[in-house]
Amino acid sequence: MNAGPRIAIDAMGGDTGPAAIVAGIARAWRRDKTLQFLVFGEEQLIRAELAKHGKLGPEITVCHTPESIASTEKPSQAIRRAKTTSMGLAINAVKDGQADAAVSGGNTGALMAMSKLALRTMPGIDRPALAALLPTLGDQDCVMLDLGANTECDAQNLVQFAVMGSAYARTVLSISKPRVKLLNIGTEELKGTDELKAAAALLREADYLPLRFDGFVEGDQLSRGNVDVVVTDGFSGNIALKTAEGTARFVTDLLRRAFKSSLRSKAGFALSKPALNLLKHHLDPNNHNGAVFLGLNGLVVKSHGGANPKGFANAIEVAASMVCNDITRKIGEDLDNFRAHAFNEAAQ
Amino acid sequence: MNAGPRIAIDAMGGDTGPAAIVAGIARAWRRDKTLQFLVFGEEQLIRAELAKHGKLGPEITVCHTPESIASTEKPSQAIRRAKTTSMGLAINAVKDGQADAAVSGGNTGALMAMSKLALRTMPGIDRPALAALLPTLGDQDCVMLDLGANTECDAQNLVQFAVMGSAYARTVLSISKPRVKLLNIGTEELKGTDELKAAAALLREADYLPLRFDGFVEGDQLSRGNVDVVVTDGFSGNIALKTAEGTARFVTDLLRRAFKSSLRSKAGFALSKPALNLLKHHLDPNNHNGAVFLGLNGLVVKSHGGANPKGFANAIEVAASMVCNDITRKIGEDLDNFRAHAFNEAAQ
Repeated sequence: MNAGPRIAIDAMGGDTGPAAIVAGIARAWRRDKTLQFLVFGEEQLIRAELAKHGKLGPEITVCHTPESIASTEKPSQAIRRAKTTSMGLAINAVKDGQADAAVSGGNTGALMAMSKLALRTMPGIDRPALAALLPTLGDQDCVMLDLGANTECDAQNLVQFAVMGSAYARTVLSISKPRVKLLNIGTEELKGTDELKAAAALLREADYLPLRFDGFVEGDQLSRGNVDVVVTDGFSGNIALKTAEGTARFVTDLLRRAFKSSLRSKAGFALSKPALNLLKHHLDPNNHNGAVFLGLNGLVVKSHGGANPKGFANAIEVAASMVCNDITRKIGEDLDNFRAHAFNEAAQ
Repeated sequence: MNAGPRIAIDAMGGDTGPAAIVAGIARAWRRDKTLQFLVFGEEQLIRAELAKHGKLGPEITVCHTPESIASTEKPSQAIRRAKTTSMGLAINAVKDGQADAAVSGGNTGALMAMSKLALRTMPGIDRPALAALLPTLGDQDCVMLDLGANTECDAQNLVQFAVMGSAYARTVLSISKPRVKLLNIGTEELKGTDELKAAAALLREADYLPLRFDGFVEGDQLSRGNVDVVVTDGFSGNIALKTAEGTARFVTDLLRRAFKSSLRSKAGFALSKPALNLLKHHLDPNNHNGAVFLGLNGLVVKSHGGANPKGFANAIEVAASMVCNDITRKIGEDLDNFRAHAFNEAAQ
C-alpha cells in the first residue's frame, strides 16, 4: 500500500476537547488506511480517546504538547506560543515538511495568524482567505471565500480571492473557466461599498484571467447554482455562511414540528423517511465541514469547532483531497500566469 | 365606520409595474375597509388594474404622476425628482399631512434619500434604518435592523439603531425590555470590526436604556428565539436577510424534490400536506414583507420590489399597524429619555 497524505492534527482545537477529533481521525483512517497522522495535544487524553476506537494502525503518531490555544485568545498573543501549542506545532509540521496539511478546529484568528507567519503567503497574495464548498440546487457545489479570515478587505484582496477561488474551483470542481461573482446587496453597478465597486471594475477588465467575471450576486441567489465562485470579505462571508446554516436548521426544525403536529402527518413522515434522510444528509453541515486557507505556501484546513466525528473526518478528507490535487502548486501556477499577463498588459 | 390610517402608495415602485401593487391594495382594503389610499402613478394603468378587482370603495384615490424612479437610478439623481415622481409624491403626502404613511417597493437607496430629505431624521438620529420582523423558533418574531439603508455604519449609528429597534420591539412585540445583540462573526469581545467593538462598549455602559444589551450574536443564531433586536450595519443586515430567504427557499426546493423522488414519498407528502402547508405559510417571505424606515419624522415602509399581491398587502398592513401604534411618537419619546439620561450621566 502506498503511503498517502500526512495530516497534522491539532487535537485540542475543538469546542469539546479531543474526543470528537480523535473519533474523526479513527473514522477517516478506517475509510482510507493510507492516511498518516501526526496528532498534537495532551498525550494522555489523546491515547485514552484512541483506545476507545479499537485497533488503529501505526500510521497514527501522537506528539505530546502540553499547551493549547484558547478560543478567546488574541491572534497577537497566540503567535508567541507557536512553538509550544498543539495548533502551532501542527502548522510547523507542515512548514518543516513532516506533514502535507494541518487540520484544526480551534480559534480562527489565531490559526490564520500562525499559519501566515509560519507558511507565508504566496507571491502576489497579500492575505490568505478561507474557502469552502457550499451546496446548491445545481449539479455542483459552489466555492465561497473569504469565510472569516479577513474582517476587512480592499479591492486588491478581493481580486486575489477571485483568482485563488477560481484555481480552487478548477481543481476541485473541474470547471475550466469558473463563473465568479462578488457578494453584494444589489446587482446594479452602483450598489455596495467602494471596495466592491473597485474590485468589480478590476475584474471586468482582467479578461486574461482563467475565469468569467459575472458581476454581483445577492444573498438569496447563493444556492441557485448559477455561480461557481462567490467572492466576499471575511465579515460578510462569515455572516452569510452562518446565516445559511442557521436558516437550514430553522427550516428543518419547523419541518420536524410540522410532522409531529398530528397523527396523520406522523404517518406521512414515516412514509417519506427514506427521501427525507437524503435531504437531511444533504443539509448536515458536518458533510460540508472543512474550510481551506488559500494563498499560503502550505495547506491548513479549518474545521468547525463544534464538528462531530463525521464532521471532523470530513475536514480531514478535505485536507487529503487538497494534497492529492496538489492545490498549492496549481494556485501558484495560476498566480504566476496572472502576474505575467498583467505585466504584459502593463508593458503594452 | 371610523376613518382608518391614510396610506400613500407608490404604484410604480415594483419590479413588474402596478399590477401586483394594485392587487395588494384591493386585498388590504377588503380586509380592512377603514383604510384610505392615495395612489401615485400612471393613472390609466392604475385604473385598468383597479377595474380588475371589482367594486372598490371611494377610499382609493388615484393621483396621476407621469414620472417614476428606475431601480438603477442613483439616489443623488432621484432626489432632484421628488416633486414629479410617484415615489417622491407618496413621501411628500406624508410630509404634508395628507397621508399617515407611505409604501413603496421601489429603489431602496432612492427611497431612503428622498424620505430623509423630505421628512428629516428625528433629533438625536444621524441616519434612519430599515427594520423588519424575522420569524424565529421562539414565541415571537425578532426585530432586525439595518436591512440595507446604510452600507457603512459607525458605532454611534449602531447605538441609535439599538435604541430605535428596542422602541419598535416594545411597541410591536410588547416586550418591556428587549434583549439586544449586535450581529458579529463571533461572540467573544475581541471579535469583529472596530465599529462593532466600540458600539458594544457604549451599549454595555448605557444601563439606563430601556433595553438589555446581551453582546454579540452570530448568523446561525438569528432564528433561535433568544434575541429580540438584532442590530447590524445595512450591508451585513441585507446579506443576512437575503441569505436567510434564499436558504429557506433552497431547503423547501430540496424538500419538494425529496417528496417527488418516489411513489412512497409522494404518498407521504399527500398525508403530511396540511401540516406542510402551515410550514410553507410560515416561511413565505410575502408574509414578512414590509420593512419600516425608523428614525424619520414620518412613516415610510419599503416593500420587496418582487412582492406578490399578498406580500404587498402585508406591507400595507405593516404601515397601518405602525400608524395605529403611533410608533413615530413612541420612538421620539424613547430618544428624548435616552438623551436626558445621557445628559444627566454626563453632568454627574
